[in-house]
Amino acid sequence: DYQHVQVPFEITLWIMLASLAKIGFHLYNKLPSVVPESCLLIFVGLIMGGIIYGLNDKSPPVMDSDIFFLYLLPPIVLDAGYFMPSRPFFENIGTILLYAVVGTIWNVFGIGFSLYGICQVKAFRLQDVSLLHNLLFGSLIAAVDPVAVLAVFEEIHVNEKLHILVFGESLLNDAVTVVLYKLFRSFCEMPTIKTMDIFAGVGKFFVVGLGGVFVGLTFGMTAAFTTRFTKDIRVIEPLFVFLYSYLSYLTAEMFHLSGIVAIIACAMGMKRYVEANISLKSHTTVKYFMKMWSSVSDTLIFIFLGVSTIGENHEWNWPYICFTVIFCLVWRALGVLVLTFFVNRFHVNTITSKDQFIIAYGGLRGAICFSLVFLLPDFHRKKLFIAATTVVILFTVFIQGMTIRPLVDLLAVKRKRESAPTVGEQIHIRFLDHLLAGIEDISGHWGQYYWKDKLEYFNSKYLQKILLREYDQPKSSIVLLYEKLERKHAIELAEAGQLGHAPSHPSLLCSVFLCSNNDRTVIMDKKLEDTLNPDVLENIQEILARNLYRIRRTGPAYNRHTLPGETEPVEHAKEILILRHKSL
Amino acid sequence: DYQHVQVPFEITLWIMLASLAKIGFHLYNKLPSVVPESCLLIFVGLIMGGIIYGLNDKSPPVMDSDIFFLYLLPPIVLDAGYFMPSRPFFENIGTILLYAVVGTIWNVFGIGFSLYGICQVKAFRLQDVSLLHNLLFGSLIAAVDPVAVLAVFEEIHVNEKLHILVFGESLLNDAVTVVLYKLFRSFCEMPTIKTMDIFAGVGKFFVVGLGGVFVGLTFGMTAAFTTRFTKDIRVIEPLFVFLYSYLSYLTAEMFHLSGIVAIIACAMGMKRYVEANISLKSHTTVKYFMKMWSSVSDTLIFIFLGVSTIGENHEWNWPYICFTVIFCLVWRALGVLVLTFFVNRFHVNTITSKDQFIIAYGGLRGAICFSLVFLLPDFHRKKLFIAATTVVILFTVFIQGMTIRPLVDLLAVKRKRESAPTVGEQIHIRFLDHLLAGIEDISGHWGQYYWKDKLEYFNSKYLQKILLREYDQPKSSIVLLYEKLERKHAIELAEAGQLGHAPSHPSLLCSVFLCSNNDRTVIMDKKLEDTLNPDVLENIQEILARNLYRIRRTGPAYNRHTLPGETEPVEHAKEILILRHKSL
Repeated sequence: DYQHVQVPFEITLWIMLASLAKIGFHLYNKLPSVVPESCLLIFVGLIMGGIIYGLNDKSPPVMDSDIFFLYLLPPIVLDAGYFMPSRPFFENIGTILLYAVVGTIWNVFGIGFSLYGICQVKAFRLQDVSLLHNLLFGSLIAAVDPVAVLAVFEEIHVNEKLHILVFGESLLNDAVTVVLYKLFRSFCEMPTIKTMDIFAGVGKFFVVGLGGVFVGLTFGMTAAFTTRFTKDIRVIEPLFVFLYSYLSYLTAEMFHLSGIVAIIACAMGMKRYVEANISLKSHTTVKYFMKMWSSVSDTLIFIFLGVSTIGENHEWNWPYICFTVIFCLVWRALGVLVLTFFVNRFHVNTITSKDQFIIAYGGLRGAICFSLVFLLPDFHRKKLFIAATTVVILFTVFIQGMTIRPLVDLLAVKRKRESAPTVGEQIHIRFLDHLLAGIEDISGHWGQYYWKDKLEYFNSKYLQKILLREYDQPKSSIVLLYEKLERKHAIELAEAGQLGHAPSHPSLLCSVFLCSNNDRTVIMDKKLEDTLNPDVLENIQEILARNLYRIRRTGPAYNRHTLPGETEPVEHAKEILILRHKSL
Repeated sequence: DYQHVQVPFEITLWIMLASLAKIGFHLYNKLPSVVPESCLLIFVGLIMGGIIYGLNDKSPPVMDSDIFFLYLLPPIVLDAGYFMPSRPFFENIGTILLYAVVGTIWNVFGIGFSLYGICQVKAFRLQDVSLLHNLLFGSLIAAVDPVAVLAVFEEIHVNEKLHILVFGESLLNDAVTVVLYKLFRSFCEMPTIKTMDIFAGVGKFFVVGLGGVFVGLTFGMTAAFTTRFTKDIRVIEPLFVFLYSYLSYLTAEMFHLSGIVAIIACAMGMKRYVEANISLKSHTTVKYFMKMWSSVSDTLIFIFLGVSTIGENHEWNWPYICFTVIFCLVWRALGVLVLTFFVNRFHVNTITSKDQFIIAYGGLRGAICFSLVFLLPDFHRKKLFIAATTVVILFTVFIQGMTIRPLVDLLAVKRKRESAPTVGEQIHIRFLDHLLAGIEDISGHWGQYYWKDKLEYFNSKYLQKILLREYDQPKSSIVLLYEKLERKHAIELAEAGQLGHAPSHPSLLCSVFLCSNNDRTVIMDKKLEDTLNPDVLENIQEILARNLYRIRRTGPAYNRHTLPGETEPVEHAKEILILRHKSL
């Protein structure tokens, strides 16, 4: 009775195949270090498509655009948004938006017009492709694909700024792509185009982009608010993270807004509140499942991309396809050069020419173009567009994807630092932020630090009270980090069997002593004695007591939102009183 | 553009609604302690069904049987199988099978024949319901529902044996229900019934049940084998647990075997190997997600049950419906009494009459009956059967479900012990197992301990080598438990800020001292000194050293599979040599 279980059975089998393919690659350690996983997966897809084609003698099923946009894309974008490093993202938001908006428009029109020029050459027999069709094609081929970029850039570990520039652009250009694609598609079907329509198109940019942000933030805040009340049923906490972000995506799509922008806004908006509200285990589950899901989606997309390539959907025209590839490369390179020139004039921290090269070279195309080209309305040159898109995707993923790692090595592009920032560094960064916010405030300059500080104030004054479960004791992120490190350290100690205060400890301790034949015992005893020598302890205590009291007496750190000496003395006296009371 | 996103949007909304309903109940602490959650959810469903009915003036959509069996049931069964306490399950497997197979057959025929008797009473106007139809109805109404049982029994905390008897029966009777239901349904459509067909039906029992076990174990072992190779891609480890168990369910359903039995066999089979292979975080994710998924499925099922109740699908016939409820209660009570009488004759650990009452009373019906009755072929009395099934489900879930907790209190049924068994207890249980296996072996009795021991031997000799990643250092479950406790303790210490050996420790320690105004300091110092007094330590060491060496000298514990003194002396000498070498 195969009919009965067909749908879930085939879905499960595809996922299984994708996961097994992934395992297979990682069994050979050398392969993944040379070839990016995305290439290997497309290759697997090509082979499978070939087998299906050979057996059935008809084109294998192409990836359904609906399945791609509704089920495969959201998990990847959610993962990207949730784990987006917010600091570098917001520090470079201006540059990213410039690349994403102006850069993409530049590419669309550049590629569209120059391909139209090619179509005018009589020898190529392409005179029937109109300017509008070329622009439509340009709008779908110009956008850098987040899935492809993520797959390649996660493996090459370039520095954080470079990564966020390429990746942020690939995410945020969705709004532009959606608008231009829909605009040109509707123009194709209209008999005449009025000037009004073009202005309406420009207005749509803002509606689509800002609408997406609005929908995303609304759902994100609702999600954070909901997790306030899940204390008694911890098991369904992770569910809300997924449900609300998916709903934000679907709602945005429903109103023709940018779903990608919405889900990113939702994920970034809810992250800090949800994290504070849900339990540690729930959070592990959320993180793990998000990664797992996006990894599976990613794998499926590349395999399907391979499978869909095989078949009879293509119309081959050498000049059009070759020039498409060339124009994609050339216009992107030009765009990056010109835009970066302007960016560098306004920034102290400039983008080096090496970085510019990698940004231009990292403009990979992927499954979004592929899905969009299949969604085109039927016209006689659709198969040519499909062929050109396929070639561009394969070219960028295979040729550029495989050579970008050697190029990064060759150019000695600055890499990502390996270690996480220490507590000390974090405190310094925080301190500098406050300092710069103060400077900006005094000088009357509304820079990023000023806005960040305003936002932080709004957050702690209003949002946290509404959205967080235990607002009574808000912990600074430094304290949270410290707790996390302590917990990690404790687990390490426990796993090494060196935990000191456990009730069941003596037996273990002694067996360790026994095993090590007394040599280690002496060392351990000494170590412990050192740590716990009453003299030393008392000494440290005294030093700290003196210093801490002195800090206390100087009053709390400067805060822009309270006048110095406003409520502090009373608070201070009260606190000491409480402490004394407790100690009694 | 609602059409485009309709399917995923509505599914997400339903899940969201279910989760929010769950949160809502738990906000009022008193409600869940009086009314079982399942009742509340059905109630919500009834209200929603009423609203839909009122607005549209037509019956709200009933729960699709396909959706139920393919998507909602598997997560719950997987959760049940994965967290099944294997020891009480296998200790009572005989009793459970007796209840599940003989008990269910008894109920089916009892209810079927006595309802046929009722149909012969002319005053009731039911003479057109044939014996076969009554038996078919009996086969779907007789089976105890695992979802309903789990929902109620998880809240009342009866002792482990009682729980596993009712719950195990509800899971394993699936094989019987499937066979009888399909048998009677095909008989209904056949013109004549041959004796052959009846014998084939009896044979099918074994095929369906054992086939399910076989399919499940095959997939379980494959899953365990697959997780051997996931070391480099930890993120997709949890996926395999879900994929393989779901595939086992679907495959079993495809071949008309018992999917429930298959998924339980798969989950129980793979559990210990998968747990050993995958990382701790993956395992947390697996457990959490399983619980979450089953909880959502569970919620959806009960809400849908409520929604589907409203509408015009029912044909009301007082005598038939009332007698169905009465017969369900009476035949189950009789069945439990008779079967328990036989069970108690062969067991030392008898089932008390209180337990018998709870077993009989806990025979709740649920969504499985409901889905099966909608799957019936169309005939003119189908609506009567639907009405009767709905009443039986509502009666058992509401009346029995709500009164079972007070009854358990009233009868003072033995409760579940609150605490987990200590390490000492576990060692003793293990020891007794070996002892009993030895006794059974000597006396030539092939009892459960004998088979358990054989299985354990087979496992450690063959299965573990194939299925486990790091077979070199197999850890006994005692050691694993110890490690787990240590880890937990370490986290607790870290969270309380009392961890001793952290590099960043002094600062924290001193601030604690400072806050507590020296009172606590003294206590802490003393405590630490006590723990670390060199004299005390030395003393403990000496005692343990002496004792441990003496144990060592007596040789390893008796093992049935190695002759005493076979390889031990050499091993022993080697071990001491290694220890000395290390200490140098």
